[in-house]
Amino acid sequence: MLQLDPASQVPLYQQVCDQIRQLITTGGLTVGERLPPTRELAARLGVHRTTVANAYAELTADGWIEGQVGRGTFVSKGVEPAKPAPSPAPFSASLENGYLWQMLFADTPVDDPLDSLLADCCNAASNGKVIAFTSASTANALFPVEDFRRCCSEVLRRDGGALLGLGNSDGYPPLKEFVRQELSREGIRAGDRELLITNGCQQALDLVRKVFLRPGDVVAMENPVYPGAIQSFNSGGVTCLGVPLTEQGLNLDVLESILAQQRVRLLLVTPNFHNPTGTTLSLDARKRLLELAARHHLPVVEDNIYGALRLRGRELPSLKALDTSELVIHLNSFSKVGFPGLRVGWVVANQQVIDRLRLAKQATDLHTDQLAQAALAEFGRRGLFARLLKRSRKVYRSRLAHMEAALERHFPAEVSWAHPEGGMAVWVTLPAGLDAGALLFKARERNVLFTPGRFFYFQAVQPNTLRLGFADTNEKQIDRGIEILGALLKRELGQRRRAPAERAETARVALV
Amino acid sequence: MLQLDPASQVPLYQQVCDQIRQLITTGGLTVGERLPPTRELAARLGVHRTTVANAYAELTADGWIEGQVGRGTFVSKGVEPAKPAPSPAPFSASLENGYLWQMLFADTPVDDPLDSLLADCCNAASNGKVIAFTSASTANALFPVEDFRRCCSEVLRRDGGALLGLGNSDGYPPLKEFVRQELSREGIRAGDRELLITNGCQQALDLVRKVFLRPGDVVAMENPVYPGAIQSFNSGGVTCLGVPLTEQGLNLDVLESILAQQRVRLLLVTPNFHNPTGTTLSLDARKRLLELAARHHLPVVEDNIYGALRLRGRELPSLKALDTSELVIHLNSFSKVGFPGLRVGWVVANQQVIDRLRLAKQATDLHTDQLAQAALAEFGRRGLFARLLKRSRKVYRSRLAHMEAALERHFPAEVSWAHPEGGMAVWVTLPAGLDAGALLFKARERNVLFTPGRFFYFQAVQPNTLRLGFADTNEKQIDRGIEILGALLKRELGQRRRAPAERAETARVALV
Repeated sequence: MLQLDPASQVPLYQQVCDQIRQLITTGGLTVGERLPPTRELAARLGVHRTTVANAYAELTADGWIEGQVGRGTFVSKGVEPAKPAPSPAPFSASLENGYLWQMLFADTPVDDPLDSLLADCCNAASNGKVIAFTSASTANALFPVEDFRRCCSEVLRRDGGALLGLGNSDGYPPLKEFVRQELSREGIRAGDRELLITNGCQQALDLVRKVFLRPGDVVAMENPVYPGAIQSFNSGGVTCLGVPLTEQGLNLDVLESILAQQRVRLLLVTPNFHNPTGTTLSLDARKRLLELAARHHLPVVEDNIYGALRLRGRELPSLKALDTSELVIHLNSFSKVGFPGLRVGWVVANQQVIDRLRLAKQATDLHTDQLAQAALAEFGRRGLFARLLKRSRKVYRSRLAHMEAALERHFPAEVSWAHPEGGMAVWVTLPAGLDAGALLFKARERNVLFTPGRFFYFQAVQPNTLRLGFADTNEKQIDRGIEILGALLKRELGQRRRAPAERAETARVALV
Repeated sequence: MLQLDPASQVPLYQQVCDQIRQLITTGGLTVGERLPPTRELAARLGVHRTTVANAYAELTADGWIEGQVGRGTFVSKGVEPAKPAPSPAPFSASLENGYLWQMLFADTPVDDPLDSLLADCCNAASNGKVIAFTSASTANALFPVEDFRRCCSEVLRRDGGALLGLGNSDGYPPLKEFVRQELSREGIRAGDRELLITNGCQQALDLVRKVFLRPGDVVAMENPVYPGAIQSFNSGGVTCLGVPLTEQGLNLDVLESILAQQRVRLLLVTPNFHNPTGTTLSLDARKRLLELAARHHLPVVEDNIYGALRLRGRELPSLKALDTSELVIHLNSFSKVGFPGLRVGWVVANQQVIDRLRLAKQATDLHTDQLAQAALAEFGRRGLFARLLKRSRKVYRSRLAHMEAALERHFPAEVSWAHPEGGMAVWVTLPAGLDAGALLFKARERNVLFTPGRFFYFQAVQPNTLRLGFADTNEKQIDRGIEILGALLKRELGQRRRAPAERAETARVALV
C-alpha cells in the first residue's frame, strides 16, 4: 500500500511517515498491529534503512506507534482511528510490494543475500559437467528400484484396501514390527508403544519440539549441526545454545558447565558420524553424557541417522542401548540407507513420551503415508534392506578412502580435515582467514561444488570450514574435484604469502 | 520421585510438601522449573486435588515456589539449592508414576476421562456385527486398488530412482501439474509457485499455524468444527474464537461483529458441506465474507476438503475462485475421494504465502512422500480419479437419501437433522436436555455407533448434538442402525414425559 514518489519534494521518510499514519487513521492498520522491521520495509520499498528508521522515529515521537524491546514495533494502544474507511482499498492493491503480507506473518526469517547466493551454488547435483560434493545423502543409483517395485506391488495386492485407507498415528503395524526387530539387533528393546513412525528424522525433530519446548525454553545442541535441526529448533522463541565439538564429538566439559549454570530443556546430539563434522563419541563419553542427563533430568534427543553407515572402526552402542534412565529419545530413519524420497523414520522413547509424540503427530498430519510404510516393511522382510546396506557401506567405504587419498595428494599442508569413522562427508578446516564461501564462488567457475561450513553454524560461525560429501560422487569425480579445489587453495595461499602487507592494509581499512 | 505413605502419621499434603522441598534443595528441581498442575499431580499420586493444592500453598507461603497467573507454578527465583546432590537418584526411579515426565512436557493436554471413554466407543469400524456411523471418510471398498497398483508400478518403472530420492519441498512436479489442471476446471488459476503439496489438509493447517500464528494471536473458526482444526489451532497460546453457524453455514453477522471488536489473525472456514454440520455458504454469503476479509486484511483459510462431494443442488464457486484480494488460502486433499492413507493434499495461495509455507514444510518434514505423489499423479493422468469421484458421488448420494428416509421413518418428531447438499454426514439435534454421549453408551450395547457432537465443539458444547456418517455404511446397515437409534430415542423421550418431576429433582440435586 505504501507507494513512494522519489520525484516528490516531500522527503522519502516523510512520505513513509504520512502514509503509515494514514493507514492507521483509516483502519488499514489497527491498534496493536505489528509493523514490519525497518530493514525489511526498507528492502521492499527500495530505500535505505535509515529512511524507514526515521519515519518510525517520527511516528513514535508522535505516539502513533511504539517499539517493544525484543518484539518489534506496534501501532500504539492510545491511537483511535477516526473510523474504519467505508470502503477501503482492496487488499490486492498492496500485494505488489508484498508489504502487507509481511505484517500478517508470525515470523520474519533472517534473509542473508549471501546465504541465498551460496545456497544456489550448492544446490546443483553432480552430472557430466559438474562435480558436486554437496550431498550428504544416498547415492540413488544404488537403489534396487525393481526389487522395491515388486515389494510395492505385493503389499498392494495383499493389503491394498486397508493400507490406502486411514491408519494409525503411531505407524503401520508390520513396519513397526520390522523396525522393532532391527532395533533389538542394535541392543534396543522397544515395545510397540515405545515406537512411533514419522516422516523421517526431520518430522521427529518437529514433533519433539512441539511436545517439549515453549517460547523461552533453552535447547543445547552441537554447533555446527545439521541445518534442519536449526530450522526446527531455532525459532518460535526457543533459544539454542551451541555446544562446540572436539575431535571426539560433543564437548562434555562445556556441556557440564552449561548444565550447572542454567536450565536446559533438551539436548540434541548425534553420537555417530555427526553431520557435518563426522565426529563420533567414545563409549566413555556416551556413559558420561548419560550420567549428566540423569543428574539434570535432561531429555536427550539422539539423532542416529548415519548410525548404520559405520565404514571403519569398532561398532559402539547407541545412547539408547546404554540408557537406563529412559531419558534418551532415539531418532532414526531409512533415509541414509535407501529411499529418502519416501520420508519414513522413527522415534524410540519411554512410552509416556511416545504417547505425547503420537498426539502431536495426529495433530500434525494424522499419520505417515501407509504405502511407503508397507513397501519398506516388505523390502525389509525380504532381507533387501540388509543387502542394500551392505552394498552401500562397501561403496561409501571405497569413496571415503579415495577422497582421503586425494586430499592427501592435492590439498596444501595448511589445510586439515577430519577422519570420520562413517557417514557421508569429510569436514575440512582451511587456515584462519580463508573464507569457504569465497572459495565456493571460485570453485563453481571450475564446476566443482561443496557446502560452506557457515550453513551448519547457528552461532560463532567459522567461515574457514567446509563439508565435502563423498557418498554420491564416483572415484573419478572425487579425484578430479579434489584436484581442482586443491589447486585453487594453493593459489589462494600463495597470494596470501606474497602480499601479507597488502592484506593487513585491507584488514585495517575494513575495520574502519 | 514423590512416594506417599498413606499409613504414615505425617499428613499427605505435608509429605508432598516435604518431598518437593527436598527435591528443590537437592537440585532435583531447579530454579524456574515448572511444577505440574495440581489436578495432574493429584491424579498421578492418587490423592485429592486439595491435598496437592495445600502442599503448593504451603510451599508458596514459605517462598519455595510461586504461581504465575496463566502460566503455572514454578520453583522460586530466590531459592538457592544447597548444592547439587553428588549422585542423585537416577531418573528412572521416578518413572513409574510418570510424574517427572509430566514436568518435562511443554503442555498439559486436557484429559477428560469421559472423552476418552466416548472416543473408545467411536473408534470401532463397521463389521458384520457393528454398525458404525462414526466415519466421515471414504468407503475404502470403492477404491480401484488394482488400477492404483498399476499406476504405482508404472511410475516406479519410469522414474523410480528419482522419485525414491529426495525431492522438492513444494511437491512432485507431475502431481503439481495435475492438481493445477484440476484447479483450473474449478475456476482457480494457480501458478506453480502458488501451489504447495502437503501431507493432507491436516498438515496444511499445521503449516498455516506455523507461518501465521504466535502465542497470544486470535483465530476465528466455526464452532462446532473438524476436531483436527481444534487440535491444530487451539494450543500453543493461540486463542480460538468460535463463530456459530446458521443453517447456511458460518454466521456472518457474528463474524462481522467480532472483527469490529478485535484483531483476528486468521479465519478458518469450510464453505462446502462443513464438517460436522453439513452446511453450505450461499453465493451471496461467500461474497460478503470476502468483502469482510478484504476490509479487515484477514487471511481466510478455506477448507474445501469435501468440496468435490456435492450430492445435490447447484455447484458454487469456492472462495478462492471468487477471491480478488488474494487473501484466501485454499486447502484441499485427495483424501475424501480416495486413498486417505497416502496423506496427500495441497494449498493454493498467493505466492508470498506459499513461499513461507514451503519453508515451514521444509523445516517440518522436507517434503511429502514422492511415491504417493507420483502414483496419484499417474492415477489422475489416466482419468481414474474422475471415474472414482463419479462412482463415489453416486454411492454416497444413494446412501444419504437412504439415511434421510430412515431418519424420517424411525426418529421421533422432537429430533431434527440437517439436510446437507454434500459431504459424508448428517448432523442431528436432539431435544435439549438429552445427551448424545449417554445415548452412545446405550447404542453401543446394541452395536450401533456414532460421534457425539461434543467432539466438534471447542466452546459452548451442545451435548444434544451428534453426527451420523453415511459414506461408509451400506443401505442395509443404515436402515437397521437408524431404526435402533430411533427406538432408543423414543424410549428415552417416553421416560422423560412420564417422569418430568423426578428429572427436575435430579437436576436440582446435581446443581447443589
